[in-house]
Amino acid sequence: MAKKDLSDRPVIGIDLGGTKILATVVAPGGEILARSKAKTRSEEGPEAVIGRMIACAKGAVEASSVEQSAIAAVGVGAPGPLDPDTGVIIDTPNLEGWQDIHLAEALRKELNIPVFVDNDVNMGTFGEFLFGAAKGTRYAVGVFVGTGLGGGVIIDGELYHGFNKNAGEIGHMIALADGPRCGCGNKGCYEALTSKTAIVREITAQAGKGKGKKATQAMFLSGQPITSSMIKKAVDRGDRMVIKVLNQAARYLGIGFGSLINLFSPEVIVVGGGVVEALGDEFLGRARKFAFKYALPLAGDNVRIVRAALGDDACVLGAAAMAWHRAAG
Amino acid sequence: MAKKDLSDRPVIGIDLGGTKILATVVAPGGEILARSKAKTRSEEGPEAVIGRMIACAKGAVEASSVEQSAIAAVGVGAPGPLDPDTGVIIDTPNLEGWQDIHLAEALRKELNIPVFVDNDVNMGTFGEFLFGAAKGTRYAVGVFVGTGLGGGVIIDGELYHGFNKNAGEIGHMIALADGPRCGCGNKGCYEALTSKTAIVREITAQAGKGKGKKATQAMFLSGQPITSSMIKKAVDRGDRMVIKVLNQAARYLGIGFGSLINLFSPEVIVVGGGVVEALGDEFLGRARKFAFKYALPLAGDNVRIVRAALGDDACVLGAAAMAWHRAAG
Repeated sequence: MAKKDLSDRPVIGIDLGGTKILATVVAPGGEILARSKAKTRSEEGPEAVIGRMIACAKGAVEASSVEQSAIAAVGVGAPGPLDPDTGVIIDTPNLEGWQDIHLAEALRKELNIPVFVDNDVNMGTFGEFLFGAAKGTRYAVGVFVGTGLGGGVIIDGELYHGFNKNAGEIGHMIALADGPRCGCGNKGCYEALTSKTAIVREITAQAGKGKGKKATQAMFLSGQPITSSMIKKAVDRGDRMVIKVLNQAARYLGIGFGSLINLFSPEVIVVGGGVVEALGDEFLGRARKFAFKYALPLAGDNVRIVRAALGDDACVLGAAAMAWHRAAG
Repeated sequence: MAKKDLSDRPVIGIDLGGTKILATVVAPGGEILARSKAKTRSEEGPEAVIGRMIACAKGAVEASSVEQSAIAAVGVGAPGPLDPDTGVIIDTPNLEGWQDIHLAEALRKELNIPVFVDNDVNMGTFGEFLFGAAKGTRYAVGVFVGTGLGGGVIIDGELYHGFNKNAGEIGHMIALADGPRCGCGNKGCYEALTSKTAIVREITAQAGKGKGKKATQAMFLSGQPITSSMIKKAVDRGDRMVIKVLNQAARYLGIGFGSLINLFSPEVIVVGGGVVEALGDEFLGRARKFAFKYALPLAGDNVRIVRAALGDDACVLGAAAMAWHRAAG
């Protein structure tokens, strides 16, 4: 099929998250012309959430001063598992009631332009690859450490999907067989060792045994939701129990990087997400040390492990780029 | 570059192993016209081994009744790490004194045709992909369980190399952090949990504690090299200790398959090597069960885990196919 050149027209990039929706209008080259946000409130069901996505998209277009008719396509990063070919969300634990939801079709009906959907962490990886910390490479792995741990894989300049279209589920590489229980039901997944959920679980268990500072115990045993910056606060307080837990989590993160290097031989691993943003270079530095201990010597040569550069914009920029790419396809 | 069509001319496929050299002449389509074997005897040094490779290659050509001038190229599967672009063996623990050996160049000087070198387990995977158990797929992983555990990855119909040209080192995915020591120096590698070396280490440790049948203890504590068929013999004797060790090894093999499915999303995992050949379908069946427990539901859909079909010929056939492919390239 001949490629239509749509790369000179703006697109809409949307990040559908568990807690918030971010819609943007993105100019060719990756400049975000306007943005519009809303809370997801997934407890109201898929129809209401899709309604808010459309409202955000229209709001962003309005704020951008771009004519709606000039917009070429929509790209969406959504929680998976999903089918990127059809834009159907198959089933996601992060949004209430989203089973077999035809997201692309629902958006297309309202916006009257092509809509493409892919996994949110894939889109974050693709954004960092095209516009951020992995720019200029051909082989990259994105690792996003937040409530869970997800990522994506770039192979020879393309996002990798594999036979069942959901490759790169790096959070569910088994790194410690028979280790802690993961949200997926199995034990010892990478995600169960080094995500925010894993870190909070371990600190809470230690606090429950009377370990750590009183302020840490009060915070973690209160039952309130724990944010990454609350973990950082306990570190700043000099709580050695917390630091020990984080050192172990960073070590596991690094061991997983080592595996990813041995398997995928990337030029760069881009690391983002709330945990890494809050805990910063010390956490990542420790992970990096173990990564190169566990990478085979040749596989690790000249490999960089760097922080993500785009923050919350990685996903919308990746989604926008996917829209250009696939609309031209 | 225009592609020269060499696929109508025979090539030489060579498997350089730690114990034996197998050279073949392969006709277009994958028929082996002739073969010639020799012991590697790597203790005599690289020059002597390369001399035997050349003698085997010439012997196979002679036996094939193909004119030497009709042969298009040579493909070699060799133990890594190596540089597939230059055909230099960088450093391999499986052959004595092979550091920075210009294997492709040395063979080309003698045989006067293009020579291409790649990793032996990559070639085994490529052979199974083109002519064996993974034929007809686009995404496949090869897993060869012998003294070590190695494999290769096929992505969209091509052997995957990545940035440092040595991707797919699946034996050094960390599956049990801080687990048993691996030959690479790290702990908990997939290879350290389920290779013949790992199985023998565990049975020997148990036998040393007085566990298992007397005949098993005699065999494993004698200091003699243990073959996969000797392990099978202990199973046939009904030694419950041995069966328990093998069940655990099969379980780890399957957990690793689960990780590989989640990461690479292959359509098929092809499993070969001495351990699987000796222990057969019961061993692999148990591994398969755990693979689909650890694979995410969507990632595991319609994925097949099958035994390799080509035995010792997988590597030479893969090497031959690589030679056609790269000579044309």
